[in-house]
Amino acid sequence: MGSTCEINAAMSIWRRLSLFVLASSLCSCLCRAEDSAMENIVTEKKAEESHRQDSADLLVFILLLTLTILTIWLFKHRRFRFLHETGLAMIYGLLVGVVLRYAIHVPSDMNNVTLSCNVNASPATLLVNVSGKFYEYTLKGEISGSEVNDIQDNEMLRKVTFDPEVFFNILLPPIIFHAGYSLKRRHFFRNLGSILAYAFVGTVVSCFIIGLLMYGCVMLMKQIGHLGGDFFFTDCLFFGAIVSATDPVTVLAIFNELQVDADLYALLFGESVLNDAVAVVLSSSIVGYQPEGDNSHTFEAMAMLKSFGIFLGVFSGSFLFSLTPFHVTKFTKLRDFPLLETALFFLMSWSTFLLAEACGFTGVVAVLFCGMTQAHYTFNNLSPESQDRTKQLFELLNFLAENFIFSYMGLTLFTFKNHVFNPIFIVGAFLAVFLGRAANIYPLSFLLNLGRKYKISSNFQHMMMFAGLRGAMTFALSIRDTATYARQMMFSTTLLVVFFTVWICGGGTTQMLSCQKIRVGVDTDQENFVSIGPDGVERRSTKQESVWFFRIWYNFDHNYLKPILTHSGPPLTATLPACCGPLARCLTSPQAYENEEQLKDSDSDLILNDGDITLAYGDITVSTDATGAHTSGTPVGGVAVNSDEALDRELAFGDHELVIRGTRLVFNALLFELLFRR
Amino acid sequence: MGSTCEINAAMSIWRRLSLFVLASSLCSCLCRAEDSAMENIVTEKKAEESHRQDSADLLVFILLLTLTILTIWLFKHRRFRFLHETGLAMIYGLLVGVVLRYAIHVPSDMNNVTLSCNVNASPATLLVNVSGKFYEYTLKGEISGSEVNDIQDNEMLRKVTFDPEVFFNILLPPIIFHAGYSLKRRHFFRNLGSILAYAFVGTVVSCFIIGLLMYGCVMLMKQIGHLGGDFFFTDCLFFGAIVSATDPVTVLAIFNELQVDADLYALLFGESVLNDAVAVVLSSSIVGYQPEGDNSHTFEAMAMLKSFGIFLGVFSGSFLFSLTPFHVTKFTKLRDFPLLETALFFLMSWSTFLLAEACGFTGVVAVLFCGMTQAHYTFNNLSPESQDRTKQLFELLNFLAENFIFSYMGLTLFTFKNHVFNPIFIVGAFLAVFLGRAANIYPLSFLLNLGRKYKISSNFQHMMMFAGLRGAMTFALSIRDTATYARQMMFSTTLLVVFFTVWICGGGTTQMLSCQKIRVGVDTDQENFVSIGPDGVERRSTKQESVWFFRIWYNFDHNYLKPILTHSGPPLTATLPACCGPLARCLTSPQAYENEEQLKDSDSDLILNDGDITLAYGDITVSTDATGAHTSGTPVGGVAVNSDEALDRELAFGDHELVIRGTRLVFNALLFELLFRR
Repeated sequence: MGSTCEINAAMSIWRRLSLFVLASSLCSCLCRAEDSAMENIVTEKKAEESHRQDSADLLVFILLLTLTILTIWLFKHRRFRFLHETGLAMIYGLLVGVVLRYAIHVPSDMNNVTLSCNVNASPATLLVNVSGKFYEYTLKGEISGSEVNDIQDNEMLRKVTFDPEVFFNILLPPIIFHAGYSLKRRHFFRNLGSILAYAFVGTVVSCFIIGLLMYGCVMLMKQIGHLGGDFFFTDCLFFGAIVSATDPVTVLAIFNELQVDADLYALLFGESVLNDAVAVVLSSSIVGYQPEGDNSHTFEAMAMLKSFGIFLGVFSGSFLFSLTPFHVTKFTKLRDFPLLETALFFLMSWSTFLLAEACGFTGVVAVLFCGMTQAHYTFNNLSPESQDRTKQLFELLNFLAENFIFSYMGLTLFTFKNHVFNPIFIVGAFLAVFLGRAANIYPLSFLLNLGRKYKISSNFQHMMMFAGLRGAMTFALSIRDTATYARQMMFSTTLLVVFFTVWICGGGTTQMLSCQKIRVGVDTDQENFVSIGPDGVERRSTKQESVWFFRIWYNFDHNYLKPILTHSGPPLTATLPACCGPLARCLTSPQAYENEEQLKDSDSDLILNDGDITLAYGDITVSTDATGAHTSGTPVGGVAVNSDEALDRELAFGDHELVIRGTRLVFNALLFELLFRR
Repeated sequence: MGSTCEINAAMSIWRRLSLFVLASSLCSCLCRAEDSAMENIVTEKKAEESHRQDSADLLVFILLLTLTILTIWLFKHRRFRFLHETGLAMIYGLLVGVVLRYAIHVPSDMNNVTLSCNVNASPATLLVNVSGKFYEYTLKGEISGSEVNDIQDNEMLRKVTFDPEVFFNILLPPIIFHAGYSLKRRHFFRNLGSILAYAFVGTVVSCFIIGLLMYGCVMLMKQIGHLGGDFFFTDCLFFGAIVSATDPVTVLAIFNELQVDADLYALLFGESVLNDAVAVVLSSSIVGYQPEGDNSHTFEAMAMLKSFGIFLGVFSGSFLFSLTPFHVTKFTKLRDFPLLETALFFLMSWSTFLLAEACGFTGVVAVLFCGMTQAHYTFNNLSPESQDRTKQLFELLNFLAENFIFSYMGLTLFTFKNHVFNPIFIVGAFLAVFLGRAANIYPLSFLLNLGRKYKISSNFQHMMMFAGLRGAMTFALSIRDTATYARQMMFSTTLLVVFFTVWICGGGTTQMLSCQKIRVGVDTDQENFVSIGPDGVERRSTKQESVWFFRIWYNFDHNYLKPILTHSGPPLTATLPACCGPLARCLTSPQAYENEEQLKDSDSDLILNDGDITLAYGDITVSTDATGAHTSGTPVGGVAVNSDEALDRELAFGDHELVIRGTRLVFNALLFELLFRR
């Protein structure tokens, strides 16, 4: 009885809210009708009217979000997993889009005036002299001839259409930052090599496969005369790039809830986060590759190389920008003022984005790496309260931005006026997306499995194949430029791909998991060390990657980066060669000396724990005595073992078939092993 | 040694940051120089360039904020109280303004083209046909003839100038909401009558006094020929309205730190928060009063009445809009999902603002009342985690917005190109502001003291007089419209008033407090009940206002509003008459029945505690038995006393000269008194 009551309550709220939306739109309609009746419209009045209208439009979106949140709550309450919040947001967006498109008719008041001027360029600011008074206009952009009539057609639909740059500069950054910021699970670092392979190699492969397939498709369309405009090979590649960005949101929310195997989670999450960055840079390189002046659009080896150069340059540039904000948090003792600390953290992250954008690099990529490095380094410098605050802040921003984007996606299917739905292109795109994903996952997994000690099993591969949803990034990239016929067709097709994958693949995640017999309900803390795979064969989480890459990285990070950027880690005076003594002393914070024993990170259950590493690579632990002398190669317990011996012993552990909980226990067990078994 | 090290570290950070700023502005300059060399500028390139420039400009502001935060940290660290963070932000803003104005010279690239068209109106959207290509322009506003040249003069300064509406629609709402949201101290409700008097009557009085004085000043200027343009009486009144909005930020930060007497805090905070709302509505009424078509600007009784009607209408309308978001939080059980709850809370608060704006009311006023009512009602429906989250979120938003506004204020003193500094007007304004504040505080305090049991002492009055700083609201109101000569002169003068009051009055707060011998270091929790005034005479915090107003309000709030809007309070079935039974059952949440004993609010030390009221007005406590029957008039302890008797006893308590800590102790003492002394 209580539950029906709740549902009734929720229903009544919805009814009220929808009445609300209706009332507010009615109100705005009336206002406008009233307005058009007036003859002498003063500029101020008009500006006020436009402001009112903007408020009403934004209000519609906010009520949409509210509605989504209430429904999500109901779904979560009932443990209903077939439709994720993003899918739901899209459905509500669709409904509102239908209403705006077909139900509300606004009398066109001929607000636009077309001027034919003999200006040789289009300036950023235009001053119009209307009978003695000057009015200032700002450039919004070029519009195609076909749009000119549309613009005068329906002001209402234009009003609810956001500037595409809003997505890139306001909505995407918090989403991407949050993804980077929550990436710091130890399983991510354990699978780093595979993740990088999927994200970089896989995305490029997928981009080219899709591009080539779509080019074939376009050729076919041209042959049978189904193509209404230009469609170049670069356009196909561009489509491949934007459609290769997979979205972690929907699937991973379900993974989180069901506590799916942590390695699968890390592989999927890592891949989808990093391939967003790859896709952004790829697509901008492809656009940069397009020769501007001439319309040749042919394939040239030189331009291809140039494009590749841009890709690498933008990528590494954006990465470098993400490293700026660390010293600030290290050398200030803001810990007593969590508000200042949180504000500073927020501003530094934002400035990374702006700095990259101002210098012509890609802000979104910079912000992703900023999130990752902030989580790994800066997080340790923050006070516990600020750690909570920043997490919660970015969680909220991410949630709002994400749901906004998805509901806008639904809305835009009906409010966007230049859709080009071409059946052949759509079918081709779906096929290409499927094949592109397959060409990413299966061959790469095969190659990776050659090098991996613990293989990526075939059901994991199928799950990764299935979980390649397209989401916010794909949408933002495709809406960014819808000027040409090719871009419009891409945009419409992309929308359909996103809808399909989010609803079908997202909704079917639970079924797919049980179908593939992938373990759920795994407590990641319990399987820190040894985990039993779905095939019953025991796997060892710590040792999934080949060792050398990981060891070099860890060593460098632990001995140099962490001490430079945070208060944790050994003092630099111990790790740097003696010749760098003054520099080391300058960079080492007093806390590093004080807390020398505190070599473990405070967030030990989130990021790669030093304890684990000490265990796995006992040989590279740096222990320092009071004089700061550098004594490498002494493992914990004081017993000298060389690198290979320690690794061998560590690997042999698997035979014991012990499932030991937590790092500390394992640590003690190893000590015991070292001291008494030999 | 440690402290010099810190300072060195901070200095090095600043040096790096300033280098950063320099580098980024240099970089943007170079970019632009490079740009102007190009001949064939494509629109896309230009848009990208403009975007880059925007990013760089925003970056400058963010680095300014970062700098401010770091300096604030240093000040707080050293307990340096002469300069508040807002004053600091202004100084940094000033410095950057000087650099932008005088140090950076951008070669004018003649970006603007003036078109003389035979259009009869200025449309919102303009399509310009440039040699076959259509470009879309949006209306930014009318500019005066004198500005036309300025616009072409320095693009750089124009770029860092924000649209004034940004302040009203983005930066002010979080500040005002936060003020309302943190207003819920019990001392506020105890001084409600006085606060309302100061805020409403006092602000209107101050507005008219300042308006009249300024009119005299303007007349004088006209006589001696110092006036360069029109200046009407309504302009003077408008100036009076915008300059009457006092800012709570600076003084109250110091009050908080020093733990100044809670009643003085409540009076100042309540007054300055509410008079912002009054000033907004007053100023918009005055603008609405100005006859649009003709330029008569004479005083008319009819228009005056109309203006008053607008004032009341806007005020009550905005207030009503603030009441919308409550039922949503009451009937949903979102407590298990703090993220959803926080997001919903944020969206509902924002939608209040937008709804009010969309319907033509004042969003800022709606948001203020929304904050107050959310704190009083919705806050109790939230889970403890969400209570923390929302508090921290709005604290952060408030902090960022506030510092941004103040640093922008500093910047605009140099970057705004149409300053009109008139010495006579400035001197007159300072005098008028001083007299207006005096005419607000002293006569009103005298009148209020006639009615108050516990007087507002003269040193409190002097402190209130001194603490009338002008801040964000005054600035936002004055920058909103700078089209005419009168408005430009007002804006320049307002800036000076803000600078003076924030630096001199804000910086001198500590001195003034010790000069006026006002108690500091008062723990508000300890003086819940009886407090000793600065004059050594014992005062009773609970009983400062006359009883009738407070009692009616409390009774209504406790018995009807709280049960309807939150889960706390007695069930409505008990408080409403029997005829409303079905309605009452429908509106009462199941929790209200369950938690009938939980009549105390969870945040008892923040908002008006039911325990206090039970004590003070034992007669109006509603106790309900299990059947829900309505038995009013039975005080706690089961001993029937009538209203006056209870009040008298309560008042007589003061004679005992007991300083009892906390409500519970007092509560027990009263029980003891009731049961054994009679």
